[in-house]
Amino acid sequence: MSPKITVELLRQLRQAMKNCKYFSEPIQAYIVPSGDAHQSEYIAPCDCRREFICGFNGSAGTAIVTEQHAAMWTDGRYFLQASQQMDNNWTLMKMGLKETPTQEDWLISVLPENSKVGVDPWIIAADQWTNMSKALTSAGHSLVTVQDNLIDVVWEERPSRPSTPLITLGHEYTGLSWQDKITALRAKMTERKITWFVATALDEIAWLFNLRGSDIEYNPVFFAYAIVGFNTIRLFVDLKRLADPAVRAHLQLDSPSKPELNIQTFPYESVYTELQAICAALGPKDKIWICDKASCALTQVIPKAHRSPIPYTPLCLAKAVKNATEIQGMKMAHIKDAVALCELFAWLEKEIPKGTVTEISAADKAEELRSQQKDFVGLSFPTISSVGPNGAIIHYRPLPETNRTLSMNEVYLIDSGAQYTDGTTDVTRTMHFGTPSAFEKECFTYVLKGHIAVSAAVFPNGTKGHLLDSFARAALWESGLDYLHGTGHGVGCFLNVHEGPCGISYKTFADEPLEAGMIVSDEPGYYEDGSFGIRLENVVLVVPAKTKHNYRNRGSLTFEPLTLVPIQVKMMNTELLTQKERDWVNEYHRRCREVVGAELEKQGRKEALAWLMRETQPIALQ
Amino acid sequence: MSPKITVELLRQLRQAMKNCKYFSEPIQAYIVPSGDAHQSEYIAPCDCRREFICGFNGSAGTAIVTEQHAAMWTDGRYFLQASQQMDNNWTLMKMGLKETPTQEDWLISVLPENSKVGVDPWIIAADQWTNMSKALTSAGHSLVTVQDNLIDVVWEERPSRPSTPLITLGHEYTGLSWQDKITALRAKMTERKITWFVATALDEIAWLFNLRGSDIEYNPVFFAYAIVGFNTIRLFVDLKRLADPAVRAHLQLDSPSKPELNIQTFPYESVYTELQAICAALGPKDKIWICDKASCALTQVIPKAHRSPIPYTPLCLAKAVKNATEIQGMKMAHIKDAVALCELFAWLEKEIPKGTVTEISAADKAEELRSQQKDFVGLSFPTISSVGPNGAIIHYRPLPETNRTLSMNEVYLIDSGAQYTDGTTDVTRTMHFGTPSAFEKECFTYVLKGHIAVSAAVFPNGTKGHLLDSFARAALWESGLDYLHGTGHGVGCFLNVHEGPCGISYKTFADEPLEAGMIVSDEPGYYEDGSFGIRLENVVLVVPAKTKHNYRNRGSLTFEPLTLVPIQVKMMNTELLTQKERDWVNEYHRRCREVVGAELEKQGRKEALAWLMRETQPIALQ
Repeated sequence: MSPKITVELLRQLRQAMKNCKYFSEPIQAYIVPSGDAHQSEYIAPCDCRREFICGFNGSAGTAIVTEQHAAMWTDGRYFLQASQQMDNNWTLMKMGLKETPTQEDWLISVLPENSKVGVDPWIIAADQWTNMSKALTSAGHSLVTVQDNLIDVVWEERPSRPSTPLITLGHEYTGLSWQDKITALRAKMTERKITWFVATALDEIAWLFNLRGSDIEYNPVFFAYAIVGFNTIRLFVDLKRLADPAVRAHLQLDSPSKPELNIQTFPYESVYTELQAICAALGPKDKIWICDKASCALTQVIPKAHRSPIPYTPLCLAKAVKNATEIQGMKMAHIKDAVALCELFAWLEKEIPKGTVTEISAADKAEELRSQQKDFVGLSFPTISSVGPNGAIIHYRPLPETNRTLSMNEVYLIDSGAQYTDGTTDVTRTMHFGTPSAFEKECFTYVLKGHIAVSAAVFPNGTKGHLLDSFARAALWESGLDYLHGTGHGVGCFLNVHEGPCGISYKTFADEPLEAGMIVSDEPGYYEDGSFGIRLENVVLVVPAKTKHNYRNRGSLTFEPLTLVPIQVKMMNTELLTQKERDWVNEYHRRCREVVGAELEKQGRKEALAWLMRETQPIALQ
Repeated sequence: MSPKITVELLRQLRQAMKNCKYFSEPIQAYIVPSGDAHQSEYIAPCDCRREFICGFNGSAGTAIVTEQHAAMWTDGRYFLQASQQMDNNWTLMKMGLKETPTQEDWLISVLPENSKVGVDPWIIAADQWTNMSKALTSAGHSLVTVQDNLIDVVWEERPSRPSTPLITLGHEYTGLSWQDKITALRAKMTERKITWFVATALDEIAWLFNLRGSDIEYNPVFFAYAIVGFNTIRLFVDLKRLADPAVRAHLQLDSPSKPELNIQTFPYESVYTELQAICAALGPKDKIWICDKASCALTQVIPKAHRSPIPYTPLCLAKAVKNATEIQGMKMAHIKDAVALCELFAWLEKEIPKGTVTEISAADKAEELRSQQKDFVGLSFPTISSVGPNGAIIHYRPLPETNRTLSMNEVYLIDSGAQYTDGTTDVTRTMHFGTPSAFEKECFTYVLKGHIAVSAAVFPNGTKGHLLDSFARAALWESGLDYLHGTGHGVGCFLNVHEGPCGISYKTFADEPLEAGMIVSDEPGYYEDGSFGIRLENVVLVVPAKTKHNYRNRGSLTFEPLTLVPIQVKMMNTELLTQKERDWVNEYHRRCREVVGAELEKQGRKEALAWLMRETQPIALQ
């Protein structure tokens, strides 16, 4: 991987920062956040501005360019990747390390007095704007909005915004009509005395209307905004997309069942002026809900007295708690996904000794096998297929110049997932096709212990995910090891593979209590830089737990694995496992056999079935 | 315990709320916070305003009185106690339960439009003021300062503010002179470009000057403020206390060694005007450090542009990391404390069968035995001596009307501690002097498993205490049990038994990373309302841990118990313990024998020694 050469781009950007065509006074620093106008994690090519300016293409990172410096902040998953993708005009700021300054502190330390720091208000979240602005102001600087995006100014041949066909999802997939979702939303608004709700997150809009698109790779969403009042529903979307009769019928555009369920449609770009118009007509007590992570541009349209910012929206929470139909769909999707992976691993076992399988070809094979499954739509994120030292690059994606051959001598890590019409998957397995070293087995076993500790944890109703994070680390910590990422994220149902508002992480922000029906990942890891990476990831469903007692009738929860793919016993040092942990592995493998075995049988996939049967033999007492 | 009758008091307070002698417009609600002007947890009688108005005398709670309602918020430790001490004019607001509104939400739900909510700015912390004010303002109300405290207005015969003699601590106790502490503080100020520091927390001021007082029961502190600049040190204290030649010499009041170490003294009350004068003379770039938990009154003296609020002060952090002399002192104090407790338990075993020992007499005996130890100063908090159902009242304090007799049939819980000139102790043991029930043993064993899980935990440098909290609960959770309080708090060295900025709790605020030299408690529990309480508490020292590996050279930490008092084996269901846990118990008891046994021997306390030897016999493999 060779770094992007940015000398000329930075020169042009710095010139734009002084060009009074874009503002009344030159700015001394320009912030390039990661997201798009919807604060999406994955973004369309036209929105990859941070990647364009610095070369780093991970999913999280903020670049800041001053007259003298250029720096980029990212987290532990991306330290290695970012250092390889950026040239030496850029300083990598490793977030989470004690010595790394915050963006605010760094700006304050490098800027001349009374500096102006510019940012595009559409791609900075309102809460980030507030924090950044406060910090800069208290140091004598100011944060200013720059309406023309300065990256776009220097970006020749920037791609245009996608507008893919919309697909409609029926009751058999969603379990709840969009009309019922609107009604539930309005009930929440009534409860909190809110008159309007502005939806800006693309997955929330897709979920609300039971529509999907493919504007952003891996995420079945479409560019849109929605504003919901008690009598109106306004949808902002490229109007060409609504010509499809199926979509028109689904949304009842031509014959609304009730006046309050009449969807008014507007062009995507008109959300700003439409929201302005709504705000101009507000009564003195009217309040508008908007997520504090919505864009600064849209948030500031709403006068402060009428603005009711929330850390996550009622749609976000409703979407996170899956209904029975969604849970059933997620289960089916995971069985199909397991079939594809069993096939993959049986194939790898046969092919690797020939020396012809590479990280890329293995990833392609995984995609090919998944695509044979019913209702396959696409991948849910770029496959991480990594051999040996590449496995230590936490969000590695194989490229021709980094592509390694799978061998009998190195650890192989594959983190992959797919979108099916009935659900979204995300699974990581780490395997060795020869003989793993004692240290590799030791680390794998600590990671497995952590995975089991979370998966088997029983905890009271109302517990937030961050309280479970240390369970995943205890075995690693005891040996002086750790991993620099969270343990789990929410997973959407045929939606984004990463979603809020719950998760399992040492970070405690935006962490809503876990409740039955939520779906998260459980994915501890260990990364030995330059040598190997280990991660074990299942998607798990929060379910009620039966306990001996029931303190204050609070009830208890635990997890049920949805992912049903064998965990390689060869990588385990089973002596390090307790009897309870061995029992967990055996019971998990029994479930894989039972459920996935039946499906392999049904699909007539004999080699994969043989592989499954062999890989799920119970481990014996030592 | 009968509740305080508050009808007449509330009538008078509500009258004062309408009396324009105190403000230009009547107020519709009045907030009575728990603390004093220093936001102390334990407070002097003259500051017990919340107790005076509602009857509840726990260490944490906020009362709010409106024209129609009176409500009091407290946490899980105090639900039972508060419900018993307050009459039915008061609504108990159980913090931490999902259905309990915040103070802000409750006020907004009960107040008429455009209400004014009053509070004494000296006893509300600046951060609380900000949050409360923001919430009320956004709902159309306003938070206003009321200079005359309205409780004092209705409080006849309010006690006067104490002014006890000061005692000086030499290098053999502190390990660091106050001059060196001032120098270190100034170095931190230089590093952060701060020109002044305002100290308002009483334990920080006592620690800084190596002085102690006894103005507040159990806490060896004295009422004072301090303001430190680069050339001046201003101490605000009742000037009569500085007449003592020992104090004058200690502070070098008559012959400062260097001009910048010259302490200027002022009356306690003049801190407000003196800070005003300092602020009037500030240069444009001058910044003043003040804790965001300092009083709103004092914080607002500092113009916003010059104010640099911090969640905890450099003194707070420096005080939390004990030096070698302090650690040695804490160890000695805990050995003496263990001697007293071994004697107590040996005595209880002999006396309980006679039916003459009560909760109060047991607590008195514990105090008597502690007072025989060298350098004993007093208790570090009111002894919780509780039998059977009283044990379920988490911060129970025996009173004549609740006093139960210790018996062979009920669980006994004693949580007690002392101040010695060399250190502060805090220890809880739960015992049965007859035959515990299977359920009592089961719960005790889960609590013990949690205690051990924290005490034996190994974790990376930089880990915050909240990440360890769930270790203490895992065994309870698995059985559907829990406890509604944190797991540990910082402990001062001959200072407050509760101190910041570290601890072990599911609450994550003001939680600084643990580092070697910090001292915290480890005290999980289980409370069966109406039946029994169990808690197991050791004070533990954070120490470096040796681990097999050392990921990114971060280093690891673990805990070393300072408390060395046997844990009753009779209460354990040893079959529920793992071999590792049994080993931990045996090794802990070996240490108790070795260290406390030697001291009992030296002090010639034969009965206690015999008790210790018997109670520390190794538990055998099942």
